[in-house]
Amino acid sequence: MKLLRFGLPGAEKPGILDHEGTIRDLSSVIPDLSGATISRYGLEVLRKVDLKTLPAVAAHTRLGAPIANVRHFIAVGLNYVDHALETDTPIPNEPVIFSKAPSCIVGPNDNIIIPKNSSKLDWEAEIAVVIGEAAYDISEAQALAAVAGYLICHDVSERDFQINRGGQWIKGKSAPTFGPLGPWLVTSDEIENPQQLNVSLRVNGVTMQAGTTAKMIFSIAHVVSYISKFMALEPGDIITTGTPHGVGLGKKPPLFLQPNDVVEISIDGLGSQRQVVVSRLTAHQRQLA
Amino acid sequence: MKLLRFGLPGAEKPGILDHEGTIRDLSSVIPDLSGATISRYGLEVLRKVDLKTLPAVAAHTRLGAPIANVRHFIAVGLNYVDHALETDTPIPNEPVIFSKAPSCIVGPNDNIIIPKNSSKLDWEAEIAVVIGEAAYDISEAQALAAVAGYLICHDVSERDFQINRGGQWIKGKSAPTFGPLGPWLVTSDEIENPQQLNVSLRVNGVTMQAGTTAKMIFSIAHVVSYISKFMALEPGDIITTGTPHGVGLGKKPPLFLQPNDVVEISIDGLGSQRQVVVSRLTAHQRQLA
Repeated sequence: MKLLRFGLPGAEKPGILDHEGTIRDLSSVIPDLSGATISRYGLEVLRKVDLKTLPAVAAHTRLGAPIANVRHFIAVGLNYVDHALETDTPIPNEPVIFSKAPSCIVGPNDNIIIPKNSSKLDWEAEIAVVIGEAAYDISEAQALAAVAGYLICHDVSERDFQINRGGQWIKGKSAPTFGPLGPWLVTSDEIENPQQLNVSLRVNGVTMQAGTTAKMIFSIAHVVSYISKFMALEPGDIITTGTPHGVGLGKKPPLFLQPNDVVEISIDGLGSQRQVVVSRLTAHQRQLA
Repeated sequence: MKLLRFGLPGAEKPGILDHEGTIRDLSSVIPDLSGATISRYGLEVLRKVDLKTLPAVAAHTRLGAPIANVRHFIAVGLNYVDHALETDTPIPNEPVIFSKAPSCIVGPNDNIIIPKNSSKLDWEAEIAVVIGEAAYDISEAQALAAVAGYLICHDVSERDFQINRGGQWIKGKSAPTFGPLGPWLVTSDEIENPQQLNVSLRVNGVTMQAGTTAKMIFSIAHVVSYISKFMALEPGDIITTGTPHGVGLGKKPPLFLQPNDVVEISIDGLGSQRQVVVSRLTAHQRQLA
């Protein structure tokens, strides 16, 4: 299933993409897509719904993030060898874990707003998992059973905040709009092998990242199991699993996002995102308009 | 007001401490204490309730964390000069920010469970704020107006996970039971000056930390404002503001928590916590019993 949320920011309803590519309104079936409704049991309930009986949603309706009320937005750093090399950081012996503020989450095609004092706004295309079952200290063999599905995550990053403002990466990963998710949550049964997916990112039509999840240092199953040794994972938690080679920081010279830049991300089977980068003033002016 | 949650884990109800020290059941007034009910407006509603009309709760009822459904559990590191020195880390020029998994939150007197493979379990007594109003990029002068109140946070830490397992501190700060909060959320109006509070922690009756919030490097108002420059704060978010001198890592030789150790924390005006440290096996055995 391809599960999604549609409507105005803060007022999204749950939906599902049918086989013809039409969005169907799920709000008569479940109140929202969240940790409470994406367990194995919850997904079975959705699987039994006859989609033709659900109202169709107008094409071009705004999409929100496919999952509401995310509590823990966990991220893996430096999980592709070429990306570690391009950022001049050692290849890690164990997964590097940090977090993004849940308040940074937005829809897959929402604007990215440049924060005040930002000078090094960078892109990171990633595959993320959504946790469907509570999990603590689970093995690698058990890990994917705790995953409800997969989605695209743009791990938007401010390198100056991340690297030069003292200590931990969270500062450069958390501004509002720094977490576009979607377009949909693709349930695990539709992804035959999450380690064989192409990941690509273009800026203004130019391909910047063209990687494959086959080249992860630590597989998705390993990452989920590993993180579960340090903390209890809860339904609705997001784990974004790291970005391949090709970020702006790694270009010679470095290249960062500017107002009006357009970022497009695609991952095999997970759809695509498109964001326009806007200055704070523009974002504010748009709110007023 | 001293707001709290009482009852079995996962089934807590909202409550309030009356002037005689009796817990009154607030569940006829609000569904729970969470970001949705602790805004300025929400607190005004609670202030108008005649506590004598509410059912009294039996003494010795278990207390949960005073706030439900925390999404972002933010922490400040190295915020007291003496603590930075004792851990052999440079005094920071800007606040060091990391996060704890929200799933680590427990009640103020719940057991602390030693995680598997833990060898360096340490204590950190801290004053934390609970955010009551949405806040992004606010000034230091505006910061305390976004704070609903204060509570004790035990920032339980596993130093080996934190320091030796690669990169970011979140790994050592997030295991289940690593975030005892409470006993109560004391609303801001009852704390005349949050920078003049004694913070003390005892292990097995021996005083290990005896600090004062007067010695913070970055004041609570500064910290809240500073964090709000990097991420949007939401009602119900927790910011724990760092620990004074006297953690186990700083002892010569280092001293870490062992099964059956008893940790007691007190902060002026905020009450006290008491936890027993238990091995995983013991915790499991207790669940079975």
